Amino acid sequence: MTHTTTRRLVLDETAQDLLFRQAHTVDRFTDEPVPDDMVRAVHDLVRNGPTAFNQQPLRLVLLRSPQSRGRLARHLSRGNRDKTVRAPLTALLAVDNHFHRRLPEQFPQFPGAIDLFTGEQGVRERSAMFNGALQAAYFIIGIRAAGLAAGPMSGFDEDGVNGEFFPDGDLSTLLLVNIGRPAPDGARPRGPRLGYDEIRTTL
Amino acid sequence: MTHTTTRRLVLDETAQDLLFRQAHTVDRFTDEPVPDDMVRAVHDLVRNGPTAFNQQPLRLVLLRSPQSRGRLARHLSRGNRDKTVRAPLTALLAVDNHFHRRLPEQFPQFPGAIDLFTGEQGVRERSAMFNGALQAAYFIIGIRAAGLAAGPMSGFDEDGVNGEFFPDGDLSTLLLVNIGRPAPDGARPRGPRLGYDEIRTTL
Repeated sequence: MTHTTTRRLVLDETAQDLLFRQAHTVDRFTDEPVPDDMVRAVHDLVRNGPTAFNQQPLRLVLLRSPQSRGRLARHLSRGNRDKTVRAPLTALLAVDNHFHRRLPEQFPQFPGAIDLFTGEQGVRERSAMFNGALQAAYFIIGIRAAGLAAGPMSGFDEDGVNGEFFPDGDLSTLLLVNIGRPAPDGARPRGPRLGYDEIRTTL
Repeated sequence: MTHTTTRRLVLDETAQDLLFRQAHTVDRFTDEPVPDDMVRAVHDLVRNGPTAFNQQPLRLVLLRSPQSRGRLARHLSRGNRDKTVRAPLTALLAVDNHFHRRLPEQFPQFPGAIDLFTGEQGVRERSAMFNGALQAAYFIIGIRAAGLAAGPMSGFDEDGVNGEFFPDGDLSTLLLVNIGRPAPDGARPRGPRLGYDEIRTTL
């Protein structure tokens, strides 16, 4: 099955392995730094991914200083603290809750797009979260495309992190991602996955 | 810039183009069918993508019959109707609001994971939406990895679609995606993208 499906794709097997089949969530990294031009290269690739009305709500806060990492650590679940302080780079992925202000310039073919998001705040924040999550996934794929490993984490006190880094409420935290090269035995073993026949219905 | 960043990545340039740089949201497709084994191959690749606690909430409903496509069409925004009825395949991407029932088997290393989601329904549904969105993005990338084009759409009456296809509330619709081979001039031109220096802060 897997062999057949591998060949059903156009993407070559090396790339399939790099991005999905041999890629793993990583908890422990080597000390090799992740320079800013590498994150820039990741963004240059994945910023092309689609979002609704090209809204692109995702914002990156790169926590490089020990101070910034310490400010984050106190809001993390216990199991996420040590590995985050030690990671070469931690990226805080957030969304701009005022993304709609950029729509006239980012989606010029539909000037009315901004009006869809000027009403109820909940509608706007839900759209930011959903489309920011799409972009967060593209970003994880991009980290792997750069030959790096990602350690995405949702185990943190969301209100605490938002209060710490975004006290004015303009941004909301989505996800934290540790980034670097995997240490030996730093990757988690692959967990089980649901089969196609469990998740697909045809009508 | 772009040339430099292209070479900063490990993923080869052909794959970069296939998945991101030359890939476009498509509105019109050829008549070539998208067989089920191709969707299965896409899933076999992208099911490896990470989700929190390996929760994998995404479910696919493939709308193949004219009847099912018609049931959907009445809940679509006007601009999405014709192209959806004519697409070789429309996938309704939804999340299982009871994903937590599978956690003991899908995330056995933390038997308490299910308890994080048995309380407030809003917490569970938010997690399903966020992690389902990650998986929706992996799925879009997977469609491109199969040499196909995706036309993701958020312009639909969400309550209407949910009432039509999921009247018992077990699933919630995230996104609709038309799938096929692009017709000549069927792809949208690339919209603008925010620059790295606009979206990245370093602390």
